[in-house]
Amino acid sequence: MLRIGIDAMGGDFAPEAVVQGAIAAAGELPEGSTVVLFGDAEQIGAILAAENHPADAFEIVHTTEVIGMNEHPAQAFVKKTDSSVVVGFHHLKAGKIDGFASAGNTGAILVGSMQVMQQIEGVIRPAISAQINTSNGRSFLLLDVGLNVDCKPEVLYQYAVIGNAYAQNIMKLESPRVALLSIGEEKEKGNIATKAAYELMEQGNQFRFVGNVESKYIFTGDLADVVVCDGFVGNIILKQAEGFYEIAKANGVDDPYINKLNYEIVGGTPVLGINGNVMVGHGCSSPFAIKNMILQTERTIRGRLVRKLCEIFN
Amino acid sequence: MLRIGIDAMGGDFAPEAVVQGAIAAAGELPEGSTVVLFGDAEQIGAILAAENHPADAFEIVHTTEVIGMNEHPAQAFVKKTDSSVVVGFHHLKAGKIDGFASAGNTGAILVGSMQVMQQIEGVIRPAISAQINTSNGRSFLLLDVGLNVDCKPEVLYQYAVIGNAYAQNIMKLESPRVALLSIGEEKEKGNIATKAAYELMEQGNQFRFVGNVESKYIFTGDLADVVVCDGFVGNIILKQAEGFYEIAKANGVDDPYINKLNYEIVGGTPVLGINGNVMVGHGCSSPFAIKNMILQTERTIRGRLVRKLCEIFN
Repeated sequence: MLRIGIDAMGGDFAPEAVVQGAIAAAGELPEGSTVVLFGDAEQIGAILAAENHPADAFEIVHTTEVIGMNEHPAQAFVKKTDSSVVVGFHHLKAGKIDGFASAGNTGAILVGSMQVMQQIEGVIRPAISAQINTSNGRSFLLLDVGLNVDCKPEVLYQYAVIGNAYAQNIMKLESPRVALLSIGEEKEKGNIATKAAYELMEQGNQFRFVGNVESKYIFTGDLADVVVCDGFVGNIILKQAEGFYEIAKANGVDDPYINKLNYEIVGGTPVLGINGNVMVGHGCSSPFAIKNMILQTERTIRGRLVRKLCEIFN
Repeated sequence: MLRIGIDAMGGDFAPEAVVQGAIAAAGELPEGSTVVLFGDAEQIGAILAAENHPADAFEIVHTTEVIGMNEHPAQAFVKKTDSSVVVGFHHLKAGKIDGFASAGNTGAILVGSMQVMQQIEGVIRPAISAQINTSNGRSFLLLDVGLNVDCKPEVLYQYAVIGNAYAQNIMKLESPRVALLSIGEEKEKGNIATKAAYELMEQGNQFRFVGNVESKYIFTGDLADVVVCDGFVGNIILKQAEGFYEIAKANGVDDPYINKLNYEIVGGTPVLGINGNVMVGHGCSSPFAIKNMILQTERTIRGRLVRKLCEIFN
């Protein structure tokens, strides 16, 4: 049995939105996969009852504390040992669940990722990533999108290795096109870090390097499957796409591709390079977003990415 | 008489598109402003004749050489002394024209900006900027968009000063909201350079600092009139917007705001912080883009921004 742990108390609309999302996901999960909810058993039970869903549909791990969205992540993680996030991470570490997803306090999830799960040996710095739909009907992986804002060239190189493994094992691409995000396709275009990273990526033989790619072309999907950048730039790209989506929606634009830029469709961003499957959801996740986060966590677990990365880096 | 110099030989569709754009601009320029074309007089004359436009409508400065779009900028600038770009810059330096705009080899225009016009005393590094339409019907200035890819905090601070002066004198805003682009609105969010720049901007008293702004919100116009970032990040934002515009167009989206993201409407990006009014156009500029670049150059000249910046920095 594949067990997907979910932080029922995490997110602006928790626990309602999370439990509703779990119910929706349960109907779509393949045989042999189940959801484990971490949170207040009474509240969860009440929501299940209100939704006319069997009380024993999910395994519930009862927790008594909640880390709020605006709490100091590291301090809260230390103090609130019976919070859904902390208990969830300890279950993941102990192998009682196969993955853990939360739309709660992002900082606390990253503290759990780094301190409880820890980075894979050989990985300099883990990353958070985003799989983004492209206008040609595929998707690309962007990393880092916010964990490491100042990246050394060696870290960018490792992100290419990690992204390549993700694309092969989760996106199921045989030979992913791995690109470095820059401001010109020529090798000599870029900042100090990207120019040095280009050298490393060009010399490396761990992935198919297709050179620099400009931000103008990443959303078409025509040039790259994996796009590597530092967390400052990646976060800006992600949020700009979100901003465009929201402006288009506010203006009543109904375009099939722009609709697919809705973050809710993807649901979560995987933390990559740590010893476990951890997924970070958007704070304002709807039940639909939670459902997709759960399904994505399941795919990530099935891809056995952590084991693959351990083999690559050791 | 206000004289706007235009590189008739610059751009993928030069000289036709440039001359056609100049004809269109001439019909919209206010009394007392005139266009001066730099380029091959015979070719320009033939286009004017084909367009049934009087041969003496523009002053033409005949030049015999052209710097190609893919030539090495610095080398070409030294060798091709009778090119439209080099002659144009020397006319600007000598005060024979009040501004110079080109859709040609960007590198060569920047060489001219830095070596012929030179930076204003006190300005550490000039910037190129983009005035971008916002969904609330206004616009914001983004700088730097590609000249300095690795910026020290002091340079980012100066960009705020320069952007503020632009917003006051060209965008005609009394008290522009100046923001620092980052990945969270909190002061402690950002990379090493932006966090240090935040400190400087917070302590400074040369503009109204409104704090960090995320890329999600810059295109609404609700939070900032001037957005400061390094040239790597700014270039990526600009090109991502261009990419979204093109995907939306390809998909047949016809939204009034998205239509206004067409770079052709703005026409050019001013080089700021040098001793002269220089405008860089898109290589693939159409006559419509050239027309708007000329009109924008005229507004920039009338705003007397160079003089204002000299006063501020000296």
